[in-house]
Amino acid sequence: MAASNGAKKMIQQLLAHVVKEGGFDKNLSKLVILSAGEGKCVASLKVDKEHINRGGALHGGFTATLVDSVTTLAHMTLENGSPGVSVDLSVSYMKAAKTGDEILIRAETLKSGKLLAFLSADIVNKETGVIIAQGKHTKFVG
Amino acid sequence: MAASNGAKKMIQQLLAHVVKEGGFDKNLSKLVILSAGEGKCVASLKVDKEHINRGGALHGGFTATLVDSVTTLAHMTLENGSPGVSVDLSVSYMKAAKTGDEILIRAETLKSGKLLAFLSADIVNKETGVIIAQGKHTKFVG
Amino acid sequence: MAASNGAKKMIQQLLAHVVKEGGFDKNLSKLVILSAGEGKCVASLKVDKEHINRGGALHGGFTATLVDSVTTLAHMTLENGSPGVSVDLSVSYMKAAKTGDEILIRAETLKSGKLLAFLSADIVNKETGVIIAQGKHTKFVG
Amino acid sequence: MAASNGAKKMIQQLLAHVVKEGGFDKNLSKLVILSAGEGKCVASLKVDKEHINRGGALHGGFTATLVDSVTTLAHMTLENGSPGVSVDLSVSYMKAAKTGDEILIRAETLKSGKLLAFLSADIVNKETGVIIAQGKHTKFVG
Repeated sequence: MAASNGAKKMIQQLLAHVVKEGGFDKNLSKLVILSAGEGKCVASLKVDKEHINRGGALHGGFTATLVDSVTTLAHMTLENGSPGVSVDLSVSYMKAAKTGDEILIRAETLKSGKLLAFLSADIVNKETGVIIAQGKHTKFVG
Repeated sequence: MAASNGAKKMIQQLLAHVVKEGGFDKNLSKLVILSAGEGKCVASLKVDKEHINRGGALHGGFTATLVDSVTTLAHMTLENGSPGVSVDLSVSYMKAAKTGDEILIRAETLKSGKLLAFLSADIVNKETGVIIAQGKHTKFVG
Repeated sequence: MAASNGAKKMIQQLLAHVVKEGGFDKNLSKLVILSAGEGKCVASLKVDKEHINRGGALHGGFTATLVDSVTTLAHMTLENGSPGVSVDLSVSYMKAAKTGDEILIRAETLKSGKLLAFLSADIVNKETGVIIAQGKHTKFVG
Repeated sequence: MAASNGAKKMIQQLLAHVVKEGGFDKNLSKLVILSAGEGKCVASLKVDKEHINRGGALHGGFTATLVDSVTTLAHMTLENGSPGVSVDLSVSYMKAAKTGDEILIRAETLKSGKLLAFLSADIVNKETGVIIAQGKHTKFVG
């Protein structure tokens, strides 16, 4: 519990830091960390205009960014859990999320090895639980 | 040739439009369309602060966004080539690109069917030709 | 329960049928269906010589075949759950399985739509629970 | 040229060897190496009963096996090009191949690094040139 609260604070500070730095991670400014620890991270986001595509739905590139970022945060909750660098990322898109929808991004570490980490995330509608996307993310962490 | 110039203008206008709309596509504001037509699209980008991660390299989420977006533009150059919706996207990350690097995103249509389109893109360093990433993108276009 | 037992028998018979037909599915002759129903299927396999690569470990192509096949069986447990045709398959390989190891293949349906089904599977060591691989499988089922 | 012929012979002998060993690679017994060298490998196969699914088309698991195997052979043509172990494999399925069809599997090395190799392959109908599948394969080669 204590460890997990510590991890949550650490992840929240890290997220705030990268958002403030003004790189591409500024796109995560509305991401809220709900829990973090033991290789997992759960975040929520209220879909807003800045996240959508021309069709009014969560942008596929932003969905991939959420998978990339929240899985990386999940890995960083581990002892010696470095951010690493991406090797492979894949996302399956199952349903649209619209402006105003609250979504949950639930990431976990499937395996954290000496050189490679294997992470996954699903994105669901917070209210209905319906799945929006699922992603896998392989990182080099050596 | 004429057709291809028409396609290039159409794609440039479309890109300008979605960037201006203020959704997630505003991240593409510095993307330059070099050529477009016959299911293909080549774009270039000078990597800037807004595209990078905490490590100073092209952000994996933005790389995925480039694959997503430029393959979609490639498909839209086809007659009846709708933007469709993403089904699956995967990206392999081979080398970092740094601030100031010029990169080329070269997208093509592998197959455009009645219901599904299969697209791919590679991203290379414009000066050296070294490959930075490769991606595949499957869209529902029915 | 009754429904699930019915589904299990149906899946077992289907598997026996395709193995007997002598196509590529004959490679699944040692696959054992443990449970099936409600879009899920769990199977086990004792890794034998016919499943391994030159390095003595579960062959990556066979691992992909297991993901492909057991997710398809999972989808067929659904009412109107057709086998469909593959659109995208991806597998992450986390750990080797060796001859004599018992592995579990646990597949589930993430979403079954009118046109597309999204399925996933993980493969674990039956004794230790350690994850060996994870896969995603998108099928056209319209 | 000489080097490439040497590479082709080496790859042919290697393939013959793994097929004979009786592991899962025996499924490749009808694969013919057409060329090999400089990180590339082109092979052909006449689709036969042993390669197909219940629907009479090239089995998705076998397609993945072809991508896995021919990309690995492509990498082994490089100096110090080890077979490595699979990290991620993804395949997009675009069109069925039927019994009697001749297919070409064309694999290449996108990047061969100290630790990771990135490979890709497409599979086309030999007569018509129509694309059947495309795959990516990331291997750990350290």
